[in-house]
Amino acid sequence: MQSLLVVGTGLIGTSIGLALQGQRRVLLADVDDEALGAAVDRGAGQRWDGRTDVDLAVVAVPPLLTAGALQDLQRREVSASLTHVASCQSRVQHDLELLETDLSNVCGGHPLAGREVAGPAGATARLFVGRPWVACPSPETAADVLTQVTDLAVACGADPTVMSPEAHDRAVALSSHLPQVTASALAARLLESDTAAVRVSGPGLQDTTRVAASDPDLWTDVLSANAGHVAPLAALLADDLRRVADALSVLARTPDDGAALGVVRDVLSRGNAGRALVPVKRGVRDRDVAVVAVRVPDQPGRLADLLVRAAAAGVNVEDVRVEHLAGHQTGVVELLVRADQRTDLLSALRAGGLEVLGELS
Amino acid sequence: MQSLLVVGTGLIGTSIGLALQGQRRVLLADVDDEALGAAVDRGAGQRWDGRTDVDLAVVAVPPLLTAGALQDLQRREVSASLTHVASCQSRVQHDLELLETDLSNVCGGHPLAGREVAGPAGATARLFVGRPWVACPSPETAADVLTQVTDLAVACGADPTVMSPEAHDRAVALSSHLPQVTASALAARLLESDTAAVRVSGPGLQDTTRVAASDPDLWTDVLSANAGHVAPLAALLADDLRRVADALSVLARTPDDGAALGVVRDVLSRGNAGRALVPVKRGVRDRDVAVVAVRVPDQPGRLADLLVRAAAAGVNVEDVRVEHLAGHQTGVVELLVRADQRTDLLSALRAGGLEVLGELS
Repeated sequence: MQSLLVVGTGLIGTSIGLALQGQRRVLLADVDDEALGAAVDRGAGQRWDGRTDVDLAVVAVPPLLTAGALQDLQRREVSASLTHVASCQSRVQHDLELLETDLSNVCGGHPLAGREVAGPAGATARLFVGRPWVACPSPETAADVLTQVTDLAVACGADPTVMSPEAHDRAVALSSHLPQVTASALAARLLESDTAAVRVSGPGLQDTTRVAASDPDLWTDVLSANAGHVAPLAALLADDLRRVADALSVLARTPDDGAALGVVRDVLSRGNAGRALVPVKRGVRDRDVAVVAVRVPDQPGRLADLLVRAAAAGVNVEDVRVEHLAGHQTGVVELLVRADQRTDLLSALRAGGLEVLGELS
Repeated sequence: MQSLLVVGTGLIGTSIGLALQGQRRVLLADVDDEALGAAVDRGAGQRWDGRTDVDLAVVAVPPLLTAGALQDLQRREVSASLTHVASCQSRVQHDLELLETDLSNVCGGHPLAGREVAGPAGATARLFVGRPWVACPSPETAADVLTQVTDLAVACGADPTVMSPEAHDRAVALSSHLPQVTASALAARLLESDTAAVRVSGPGLQDTTRVAASDPDLWTDVLSANAGHVAPLAALLADDLRRVADALSVLARTPDDGAALGVVRDVLSRGNAGRALVPVKRGVRDRDVAVVAVRVPDQPGRLADLLVRAAAAGVNVEDVRVEHLAGHQTGVVELLVRADQRTDLLSALRAGGLEVLGELS
């Protein structure tokens, strides 16, 4: 079995260890002994003794610390192949050149996965499943090191792809870094309002601000490391919003101003077209599943009762969504099942006297 | 049984009809006979004959057509009480005043619910469950008409609240209309890129752009009807993004510029604080809940077993998220509970020999 050293047992490093259990011998290191202990407890691997050689070392520390950690591993001759998971590749590449590191045994990598919950506690073996994992070789990278990175991606369940550091950084500036800036700036607006706005909010506010919960220190590093690519995009977005703001100012005075209506409609229409390019949820297609909604009293055990009935009918519930307000007498539970088990589930629920509210497809 | 006329069988109108089945006699009308037929087929109510009196009429047409439709119903003396569901209340109020409508029997209303799937096909009886439904009386509105609107909200499973049209419009400008503009402008940026960006995207892009799929014509109406409130918010957001863009331009040249780093960190930190105000799930905020992750075999009944254990310990599971891939042998279940029930839940799960993967908070 090949061996792997993970340096940095945060969300990504610990998740890599978890994903590779049974496939690689995983050793773990972190300057923060508490984080390291948590990752070992989670079963992500064993503590590295600081000496043992490995086949591949993965540096999973914040982007501005990545090059230094790679250089340190090179000096200690721990591994013939090195990779990292930094969300900005050119900056790491540049730092490595400044440090006069041997570039032939380093190949950058970036798994496009994450959650707002940081650290080993948020880690999961499934974090990378179906996600892109971009391998970013430099011109000096040896081919076999690149292969090790794409093999690592596959072993974690990800879809490997290869880009230059420059192309990668340009792509994630738009697909990841600009959305982060936008969500943060939007959520920041809520601080300057009374409480009415969040009280009368719908699911749109929830979705658009979700990533604003991300770690500010980590993201300050990420954004400044990729500043050259993110800056012009943020400027263009600011210009677009300024144009919409100006058009709305006109419409506030002249509700039927054709040019102003055109500006507003144009951004909404282009938004429609842009959104159509975004891949939907990984793996599962809508048509393969059925959703059944049931009203249940909001009491301990009622959700369990529902699932016991489903299980008794041989139905495997793929996902559960509970929608209710704390303190309310009833909630709504949506059960997601394979489409061909829908009829069995409905029969079981109705036989149990449960109120089925509707079926979505 | 009280009777209700719904004029406009789109997503909202049809969902109201579905929600009230068994509680009200629902009659339906729409200028588009195909939409009306679809709503009747869905079981949302019966076709209105154009004459029959009702106890309450609900106008559920686009905001700029709402006042005209209300005036038409008043002239035909169809109902002693009238409401509507427009997402902009002041504009409708203003239009009604221009039309010299009798304002005493009209009370505006706005259910904060929706989906990207428009029309009767997207309708569901549960659309309003647990959602805010803002009743917006004018100074002339008779008290019993207001009561009819809050009764309607309750009958649909929503939480009625009362605001002036002005306060409502100011609140939704921030909680709904600004997020729409932002998501659309962000998604529109994708059109000007090569395909690499969307190919290497993660869940952040998916969430931040979801509402950009909304109907551009409907939203042009909504935004222009509430332009006076949305314009200054969009301008402030544009200014914030411009400031971040400028700071990032500095960082592209001078990576350790303290002032520029401060600007970037500030927007991320304020975004964190703003996001903490957003209800996670209809009224529950992040800090009030704990999330416990457990590994379970992907077999019928195992999820039920988990919830039975939680219930036996007196823990009310607020939400459940199941994460697994079809075909995998195990999945991870995240249980969301009130923060003060976390310890009880952990004890119960561990006593049952279940593998707790980590606690998120």
